[in-house]
Amino acid sequence: MDFDIKNIDLAPGGRHRIEWAEQEMPVLRGIQQQFTSDRPFAGLRISACMHVTTETANLMVSLQAGGADVVLSASNPLSTQDDVAASLVSHYEIPVYAIKGEDNETYFKHLNAALDHNPHIVMDDGADLVSTIHKSRRNLIDNMIGGTEETTTGIIRLRAMAADGALQFPMMAVNDALTKHMFDNRYGTGQSTIDGIVRATNVLVAGKNVVVAGYGWCSRGIAMRARGLGGNVIVTEIDPLKALEAVMDGYRVMPMMEAAAIGDIFVSATGDIHVFDEHHFMAMKDGALLSNSGHFDVEINKPALEKLSTNGPKRVRPFVEQYTMKHNGHRLNLLGEGRLINLAAAEGHPASVMDMSFAGQAMAAKYLIDNKDKLENRVYTIPQEVDQEIARIKLDAMGIYIDTLTAEQVAYLNSWEEGT
Amino acid sequence: MDFDIKNIDLAPGGRHRIEWAEQEMPVLRGIQQQFTSDRPFAGLRISACMHVTTETANLMVSLQAGGADVVLSASNPLSTQDDVAASLVSHYEIPVYAIKGEDNETYFKHLNAALDHNPHIVMDDGADLVSTIHKSRRNLIDNMIGGTEETTTGIIRLRAMAADGALQFPMMAVNDALTKHMFDNRYGTGQSTIDGIVRATNVLVAGKNVVVAGYGWCSRGIAMRARGLGGNVIVTEIDPLKALEAVMDGYRVMPMMEAAAIGDIFVSATGDIHVFDEHHFMAMKDGALLSNSGHFDVEINKPALEKLSTNGPKRVRPFVEQYTMKHNGHRLNLLGEGRLINLAAAEGHPASVMDMSFAGQAMAAKYLIDNKDKLENRVYTIPQEVDQEIARIKLDAMGIYIDTLTAEQVAYLNSWEEGT
Amino acid sequence: MDFDIKNIDLAPGGRHRIEWAEQEMPVLRGIQQQFTSDRPFAGLRISACMHVTTETANLMVSLQAGGADVVLSASNPLSTQDDVAASLVSHYEIPVYAIKGEDNETYFKHLNAALDHNPHIVMDDGADLVSTIHKSRRNLIDNMIGGTEETTTGIIRLRAMAADGALQFPMMAVNDALTKHMFDNRYGTGQSTIDGIVRATNVLVAGKNVVVAGYGWCSRGIAMRARGLGGNVIVTEIDPLKALEAVMDGYRVMPMMEAAAIGDIFVSATGDIHVFDEHHFMAMKDGALLSNSGHFDVEINKPALEKLSTNGPKRVRPFVEQYTMKHNGHRLNLLGEGRLINLAAAEGHPASVMDMSFAGQAMAAKYLIDNKDKLENRVYTIPQEVDQEIARIKLDAMGIYIDTLTAEQVAYLNSWEEGT
Amino acid sequence: MDFDIKNIDLAPGGRHRIEWAEQEMPVLRGIQQQFTSDRPFAGLRISACMHVTTETANLMVSLQAGGADVVLSASNPLSTQDDVAASLVSHYEIPVYAIKGEDNETYFKHLNAALDHNPHIVMDDGADLVSTIHKSRRNLIDNMIGGTEETTTGIIRLRAMAADGALQFPMMAVNDALTKHMFDNRYGTGQSTIDGIVRATNVLVAGKNVVVAGYGWCSRGIAMRARGLGGNVIVTEIDPLKALEAVMDGYRVMPMMEAAAIGDIFVSATGDIHVFDEHHFMAMKDGALLSNSGHFDVEINKPALEKLSTNGPKRVRPFVEQYTMKHNGHRLNLLGEGRLINLAAAEGHPASVMDMSFAGQAMAAKYLIDNKDKLENRVYTIPQEVDQEIARIKLDAMGIYIDTLTAEQVAYLNSWEEGT
Repeated sequence: MDFDIKNIDLAPGGRHRIEWAEQEMPVLRGIQQQFTSDRPFAGLRISACMHVTTETANLMVSLQAGGADVVLSASNPLSTQDDVAASLVSHYEIPVYAIKGEDNETYFKHLNAALDHNPHIVMDDGADLVSTIHKSRRNLIDNMIGGTEETTTGIIRLRAMAADGALQFPMMAVNDALTKHMFDNRYGTGQSTIDGIVRATNVLVAGKNVVVAGYGWCSRGIAMRARGLGGNVIVTEIDPLKALEAVMDGYRVMPMMEAAAIGDIFVSATGDIHVFDEHHFMAMKDGALLSNSGHFDVEINKPALEKLSTNGPKRVRPFVEQYTMKHNGHRLNLLGEGRLINLAAAEGHPASVMDMSFAGQAMAAKYLIDNKDKLENRVYTIPQEVDQEIARIKLDAMGIYIDTLTAEQVAYLNSWEEGT
Repeated sequence: MDFDIKNIDLAPGGRHRIEWAEQEMPVLRGIQQQFTSDRPFAGLRISACMHVTTETANLMVSLQAGGADVVLSASNPLSTQDDVAASLVSHYEIPVYAIKGEDNETYFKHLNAALDHNPHIVMDDGADLVSTIHKSRRNLIDNMIGGTEETTTGIIRLRAMAADGALQFPMMAVNDALTKHMFDNRYGTGQSTIDGIVRATNVLVAGKNVVVAGYGWCSRGIAMRARGLGGNVIVTEIDPLKALEAVMDGYRVMPMMEAAAIGDIFVSATGDIHVFDEHHFMAMKDGALLSNSGHFDVEINKPALEKLSTNGPKRVRPFVEQYTMKHNGHRLNLLGEGRLINLAAAEGHPASVMDMSFAGQAMAAKYLIDNKDKLENRVYTIPQEVDQEIARIKLDAMGIYIDTLTAEQVAYLNSWEEGT
Repeated sequence: MDFDIKNIDLAPGGRHRIEWAEQEMPVLRGIQQQFTSDRPFAGLRISACMHVTTETANLMVSLQAGGADVVLSASNPLSTQDDVAASLVSHYEIPVYAIKGEDNETYFKHLNAALDHNPHIVMDDGADLVSTIHKSRRNLIDNMIGGTEETTTGIIRLRAMAADGALQFPMMAVNDALTKHMFDNRYGTGQSTIDGIVRATNVLVAGKNVVVAGYGWCSRGIAMRARGLGGNVIVTEIDPLKALEAVMDGYRVMPMMEAAAIGDIFVSATGDIHVFDEHHFMAMKDGALLSNSGHFDVEINKPALEKLSTNGPKRVRPFVEQYTMKHNGHRLNLLGEGRLINLAAAEGHPASVMDMSFAGQAMAAKYLIDNKDKLENRVYTIPQEVDQEIARIKLDAMGIYIDTLTAEQVAYLNSWEEGT
Repeated sequence: MDFDIKNIDLAPGGRHRIEWAEQEMPVLRGIQQQFTSDRPFAGLRISACMHVTTETANLMVSLQAGGADVVLSASNPLSTQDDVAASLVSHYEIPVYAIKGEDNETYFKHLNAALDHNPHIVMDDGADLVSTIHKSRRNLIDNMIGGTEETTTGIIRLRAMAADGALQFPMMAVNDALTKHMFDNRYGTGQSTIDGIVRATNVLVAGKNVVVAGYGWCSRGIAMRARGLGGNVIVTEIDPLKALEAVMDGYRVMPMMEAAAIGDIFVSATGDIHVFDEHHFMAMKDGALLSNSGHFDVEINKPALEKLSTNGPKRVRPFVEQYTMKHNGHRLNLLGEGRLINLAAAEGHPASVMDMSFAGQAMAAKYLIDNKDKLENRVYTIPQEVDQEIARIKLDAMGIYIDTLTAEQVAYLNSWEEGT
């Protein structure tokens, strides 16, 4: 078996951690059991390019259980867990091409090694496999059934390719599944963001004014959890509909300039730039905590913060840089350098959240097989029935059962939709 | 001026009540002020067929302030408030054709009187004006700019007409506005349903097991409010996604058969038939309260309840009929005869909720005028910008201000949507 | 059998209503079952002077089930329900002396008729029976075992008597039980106050600024429920400890003068005078709603409101008087004339709340019997074990079971208290 | 200046951290400002025996600002932060006798060095200074004004001494202050316990069944926060009053044996032994998380867990030991070895919580001075006015202002308490 990893001796520790993650991934486990008996991927090759983590390891194992011949390369040189790579090779006989800290050249060598596998299906996290196939490995196209893509960024790229008629096989947009959003954005980001703030500062949330910028899925998750810990939440918005919803949900809503002067803890999750900006910093109270939960570290205007402060930031705790304002001496504390606070200061999403996303990956791959003759060369949203199936397995895993419509009820609904 | 109402002497009392409602309708008031200066309906005739209530009166006055020549007939013979009709005629010089309790013949005579007005725009609540025009008053069609429709039922009818190519002018589906759903379904129904249950029974909600059937907009509003009063809420669902969301929101989720045995208060808001059925009644505890918040009184299987009980129901309080079960002597209490409990035992939606719906009506009418040359003969959803405008006026009326994107932020968002 | 009531023919309707209340009083029902088998009052006479309501009727029946020979007179001429009086006489053979609207002379005649019963125990609601015995019926003293008192006012009187050495038999202060406070003040007043406001105005609470004066048991119940309905709650206090607790519970806390300018709904439950006063009215927004949930109607300074307004109040809805301010034209709405809003506009406490209070009455009476040789002539608080017994019966009635300490756990706790 | 610390060169880092803590201690800062101007301890010597942490450093500095001549020794050999000790000596000129990891002999040498200071006041954390004075340094007694004690354990010891007539000077029981309980137990323990569980496991709380043993101040704080993160909370109790309160607060209440079978996360905070015991473990689901938030690690029966499992525990994550049950293969995860989870896996109480406790210490010391001629040789509870003063300073520090009674209101309250 060919592979390229750091050190095979790390395998035992990796196995240990893969097994722990497996316990927190009941949905994927349920799917794996189904795959084990149905063998939907029998005779098929899958090449994946994803973060080499304990959760991904469980996804690989599930695909393997479904009959797939799987290989894995890293989607990011920094996120590889070398012990996991070692265990996949050693205990699960899955070839891995990934070494933590690998240089760019090695990264592409690994990516191509994964493609040398001559896949029927690719699993992508940023569209690198698909791009490479279309650019330099076009001979692989004929053999391809399709692929899955995890990220928003990747999906934007793929949609652009499809719009240009360039896409040569169907792709499943795993990111769009409701079960992913529900867990990942609202509940996952909600809890882990507050968790990151508390770990960085050890602050008591109860009684604090918590200013949440935005009222989208992520930010309403954050608002909900900040309130749940006793915080007095203030929401800022630019969309009147979302603002009104925040009001009706019992939050205070006001312009950021007004919130700046009374907030104790600030969190931004808008996807936009400079949500906390120069004039806001000038109005803030001594001791204010500034954090970001958006994807890029642009939501807090760090250069402005630097400019307004007497000198560079002072590291006062791990993950806390303190800026002293020239004009009034107030100390503003920037958490996690303005990067995603749940990743910077906490552990990011729990395995149980990745469970839902990767269930989407596994089901999307199966959907490609089940519908291979019907699909066109475009980007597909996860169909509602797949979403519902994931939700159903999750409920089962939690030991929760629900009702089904009676024949009488189905008939009534139909008559109503048809009739008056 | 022509009109047909019960008694013009009732006008003073009606005016009084119209003015009280006006205070609770700040959005419509804001729109009225804009209409007063812009006069968008100058020279236009509007015929409305709606419930003749204090809230509708305020809508009529707003349209009049916008320059419209308005007439009003009743959309339901039973809902007419005769004092409001009198005041509209006497104080506002708006012709009304509506008498509470009028017979079917009079109802259609009134409806046709409204059409005799030769309208440019119709406002419908059940599509009766539009149907009549298409069936028997087709000479009016040429003059028509379009119409608005309040109800789901009416919209289904209109969509069927449009699909058949029968619809002869554009119609606005007011019901679809987000600002309507947000207030009407989630917050309006949520509060008023629990209100209806408490008024009917004077029960203390804290510590009770409250079983809510469904987790759509209405039912999640009900669940939220029942929890807000200290109830321990159990949700039942048939859709695994919604069920999962209920679980993640911290509710218990289980099949109705299981919930039946432990619930103290039951509410259904599913839109389906026999949600509480024979086998559920047989499992319920002594003293259980049964209520419905769905549109039709079919969600509770009343014939089954009747059949299982020792004799007919006993009226034990206003709005409470008690059935004693043959098989175990348990007393099940049916509230408001299984009809919409918020209307049966409380006052239905507050004026502040109708404010949002009628703001949608007024804005939809203006949208018809503003776009009259562009619209086709089909059913239009309220455009997002109208929804946002309503939300903006509502926020203004509440004294709440929000942010706007800076030029830098707009540029950033655009660049991101275009490139990576 | 001697009695004096309005009309014996009203009995059937009364019985009906007594039975409905009985369903909502599971604790009293549990006690009644125990009394039925234990007969603690066998051979004893009890004279009660209480509001003649359906709930009181159930208390009387429970005492009778315990073997007591019971008579009942009205504690307030206005609160007598004549049908209940008739049913007690007719169906339960309990002598009643009470006619709704009776004059003062009749009231005392009835009270003395109750004392002619030569009681061993008296049940008082305002200390009238006990006062009369001590003033003019001292020959009854020798026979007395003791009495129970429901109200704070009565207890203050009795404590004064005890302090002067005047009290001639032991009295139980039923009002002090924790089970009474928990239900009555926090959960009972909390729900019923908001209920009263909603019934009076049909206002949507979600998104409103609700100003709650005070953070005692009643007012924190109100704050909790206002938040539960989506209100944004502001608390005002004069005690820094309670204010801090409100802050830590996530509420905004500020001086009333500041709250006055932003509140939509105002509620006072402080027990003090002029909580909403002249300068507050001058700052309030147009449309503000003013309500009181304290015992006396002094918390809102009505004379000041009158003085500031252009003319007398205008009744704009039942239970809503509108005052238009001279200085700015704002319309302030006084609910229920500033009286206890849960009684004025709603139904006061649910039977399930009275259930706990009357369970206290019944258990207090039993406690007098059980300890008759040990008690001194003073006012006794309900002992903790009685409180716990009431709570236990309530839990049983709700089908809720709890743990008991193991022998090992008892030993551990004891060793800890004794040792280190 | 005499002192005994690890390394004076650590001072700069210590100063840094002391200043960070100072920002989170606004109440102590407020008191320090008052002390700076009032100099209540001018000419007095204070010997403290406390954990040498950044928070304690701030307390020492505050006392010094009040004019006291302060020395500090460690109350626990393991909790000393050597950099803080160095900074106190170097920057604040406060003698410190504390070295992390010091042996028992050194510990007592240090304690005696603190007493060599010949104090007027002692500050104790476990009563070691007071014991030593009474046992072997009785010559110090004459000079003593009194002391303060932080812990429950210390207070029990002191009360025993007072009861025996052995206590030779007055002691203030700082632990009993309401402001301490409110922050420490309810809000502090509530947040930090859930924080500890999340850090140990990275579990998503939303949708999980969280079983909280007990409904005292700590456990109701935990329940509140678990619900706030979307957990479905089950409470177990042995006290029917507390159980009933939990029910009325909307939680499920049931015996532990029943909860054991459905819980995902278990937390105990009862102060009793074996709250989670053998028969509970046998019923638990695969993957259950077991944690303790009580003072001692006896609440989870670890020997029983050991006995029931196939082999010793397996460390599956830092702070997580996994036991596999012999009888059914379920994996139960013990967090933090059953020790206080908020200290084991998180950072314990935030500085803002210690702020309140140490404000109590400072105010208690001042109270001793202010009342030195009136106090007897017994244990005093913190007087309500001191508690209120702490709350007032905390509110000030948060920028929150509250009302004061008007003369009219004071008069009304008095008349009511005196009169009817």
